[in-house]
Amino acid sequence: MDDLVSLCKRRGFIFQSGEIYGGMQGMYDFGPLGVELKNNLKQAWWSSMIYENDNIEGLDAAILSNPTVLRYSGHEDTFSDPMVDCKSCKSRWRSDLLQNNKCPGCGSSDLTEPRPFNLMFKTNIGPIDDGETFGYLRPETAQSIFTNFKNVVDSSSKSLPFGIAQIGKAFRNEITPRNFIFRVREFEQMELEFFVVPGTDEEWHKKWVDMRLLWWEQQGISSENIELYDVPKDELAHYSKGTIDVMYKFPHGLEELEGIANRTDFDLGSHSKKQDELNITANVMKNNSSNTRLAIQDQNTNEWVVPYVIEPSAGVERGILAIMNEAYNVEQLENGKERTVLKLKPHLSPIKAAVIPLKKNNEELVALASEVKNSLQKLNLGRIILENTGNIGKGYRRHDEIGTPLCITIDFDSLENKTATIRDRDSMEQEVVAINELQNYLIKKING
Amino acid sequence: MDDLVSLCKRRGFIFQSGEIYGGMQGMYDFGPLGVELKNNLKQAWWSSMIYENDNIEGLDAAILSNPTVLRYSGHEDTFSDPMVDCKSCKSRWRSDLLQNNKCPGCGSSDLTEPRPFNLMFKTNIGPIDDGETFGYLRPETAQSIFTNFKNVVDSSSKSLPFGIAQIGKAFRNEITPRNFIFRVREFEQMELEFFVVPGTDEEWHKKWVDMRLLWWEQQGISSENIELYDVPKDELAHYSKGTIDVMYKFPHGLEELEGIANRTDFDLGSHSKKQDELNITANVMKNNSSNTRLAIQDQNTNEWVVPYVIEPSAGVERGILAIMNEAYNVEQLENGKERTVLKLKPHLSPIKAAVIPLKKNNEELVALASEVKNSLQKLNLGRIILENTGNIGKGYRRHDEIGTPLCITIDFDSLENKTATIRDRDSMEQEVVAINELQNYLIKKING
Repeated sequence: MDDLVSLCKRRGFIFQSGEIYGGMQGMYDFGPLGVELKNNLKQAWWSSMIYENDNIEGLDAAILSNPTVLRYSGHEDTFSDPMVDCKSCKSRWRSDLLQNNKCPGCGSSDLTEPRPFNLMFKTNIGPIDDGETFGYLRPETAQSIFTNFKNVVDSSSKSLPFGIAQIGKAFRNEITPRNFIFRVREFEQMELEFFVVPGTDEEWHKKWVDMRLLWWEQQGISSENIELYDVPKDELAHYSKGTIDVMYKFPHGLEELEGIANRTDFDLGSHSKKQDELNITANVMKNNSSNTRLAIQDQNTNEWVVPYVIEPSAGVERGILAIMNEAYNVEQLENGKERTVLKLKPHLSPIKAAVIPLKKNNEELVALASEVKNSLQKLNLGRIILENTGNIGKGYRRHDEIGTPLCITIDFDSLENKTATIRDRDSMEQEVVAINELQNYLIKKING
Repeated sequence: MDDLVSLCKRRGFIFQSGEIYGGMQGMYDFGPLGVELKNNLKQAWWSSMIYENDNIEGLDAAILSNPTVLRYSGHEDTFSDPMVDCKSCKSRWRSDLLQNNKCPGCGSSDLTEPRPFNLMFKTNIGPIDDGETFGYLRPETAQSIFTNFKNVVDSSSKSLPFGIAQIGKAFRNEITPRNFIFRVREFEQMELEFFVVPGTDEEWHKKWVDMRLLWWEQQGISSENIELYDVPKDELAHYSKGTIDVMYKFPHGLEELEGIANRTDFDLGSHSKKQDELNITANVMKNNSSNTRLAIQDQNTNEWVVPYVIEPSAGVERGILAIMNEAYNVEQLENGKERTVLKLKPHLSPIKAAVIPLKKNNEELVALASEVKNSLQKLNLGRIILENTGNIGKGYRRHDEIGTPLCITIDFDSLENKTATIRDRDSMEQEVVAINELQNYLIKKING
């Protein structure tokens, strides 16, 4: 983990947030390479959900949330961790993480009884600060999918089964953030709420577990490092009939990468008006605040159905940590040296190709390299850079370390024969290719 | 404006946030089409900044911000609007927007003196709520670019001039949100901080104004609807030596779409340690909290230089409003009817092409249409949908209204001759094209 954290900072993937003022606990900033990797991962998810399925629609809702939404979702009552105070040094801790019921700060065992600490961030909204007009930073993206259910159904004429997918920030005021970007206070989620006819929910639940495993494999996660955890009944969240956690062997241990829950009709039922007129099976709070019926009419029988919901919910930062962990390799070379190489799947690589003129500032070489860069950039496959440093060997080492699949050298042969030398990150082999073939070469490398 | 707002809701571009509980003032959710349009606009900006310039790097920093950052940036002291209370009905208003110094709520003229109301949202961070451990939701993305200046320089070996660009959410507790998505409490910014050698700042300022105007034109903003406003000295923000506002004729009036400011060395100077050792020209607060020198070493003279900064700062939501306003057309047709058409630039369209089988549920037609959809989807140009409704006329009308550039009909001829009929959104003309030519046709349409 230490090597990974150090690479992340040195190469510009991930920085501690607000470092120049001592840093903010549990907050990270994504640097030039990190933001590309993150965007590529989000794009891969979005594409697999929305572009490859005509029955899944996207959404991008606000972060600041109406407290009423979080009351009916159950978050105001139950979204908390058990917390203890150390009576001796006044520090606070998550009690279920204490090893021996002693304060990790001062060692005292004089602790208070655990009490629930709500993890939602609260902020005043509007000019009047009377404690009434506040909002929460959303603790999950899911709830805004449920509250927009009717908007999406009406505007896109959907019938069951169908899904609504969202990627966006969520916030949890963790008592003890830890393990680099694994448990943080500000993070991004990729959540799908897939609405199905009640009774078909268990079958869809299984299908989505399989589909999600396949997707993680396509992102470079080896199935050997994955374990499924069927959450026991007594550990299930209040809304869940069953949850399968996709567990990954992170550097710090086996922990959740994604959860796939059968949320039943709890959420739509809970946020719906006229609940008595609907066949809600979940145990929901009586709702007199909602102005909308969150159900869908069966096209044949005209009956109103409250769909069941299957929710694959993944964390972007956890995904990145797992993917970086899989990709990170230190290889022994034949010449006795070693190299660090990030074997990212090419579609995730922050930089797709580096175009390097053999000699720095040589006008002709740089002009041709620039032409090559532009023609590859136009393909919309991600970032291509022109690297005018004149140090090919150093360039290779740097691009191995940041996971660039291809380095393309423009030399004096290039000027004469319209060829370029491609060097492959994984095999380290070099190949001379006609410049007018480079576009196809790159497309094949990135899209497979 | 009303027609636009209504289209946005009906077709799934933009919904009021938390509508089922009466809505949240100044907050909006982007629906299935809105999120695609927004992502496309952000992608166009990102691409024009980072992919087309080897000297601009990206960043994606946290929203929750260290108060120390916002102290040295000047936000704690100056980021406020003047507010008055109505003594009669207790409501609060932004005093500079009152027409006649009467309360717009009850009409009383018994108002308090205006006082500054700070627009930053504040929230407690961590388990101890003693008023000390709070953070702000960032009021702009710019500050985290400045605080990461050294991280980016060190990890990407940059020399002047170079830029750092960021897209992300920002939050302002507006006293009076208004004009649909124009003035909201939660929004996205696209900000570039471009660092230059002091003395070259005015020249770069001009260049960036020109480049930004060109970019907005490429997004479909007619130059006839743009005016430049050279902000007078006495209206400039505390950090600015000069600001050019790009003003757009919005449906509700001429207002700022983007601001391009010369921030001088104010921000880097303000957040730097050992300010006395640097040649800071701006008037900055003495800083004993920073642990980092935010300057760059001149490669020839080895001298430390605090760069000047040119900042083109655009609002995503304002961009979308302007683009929708430009694209929205109601056309009189020859047959006496009219059609609503959203003439978006194809790279911004939420859906790039709709593939429509002539007959609903016809197995052969749907199978071929699905094949066509997949082959076009693979190009990574955006969302392609298969629309199995069997109603071509209705499909055309819907896709005109949401700005889909091409509708591709698969009919019985398609099965026999491997052709499809393409219908163009703008000309409404139809053309029969070989199926194996569709990929090239779409690439040309979208990428130009």
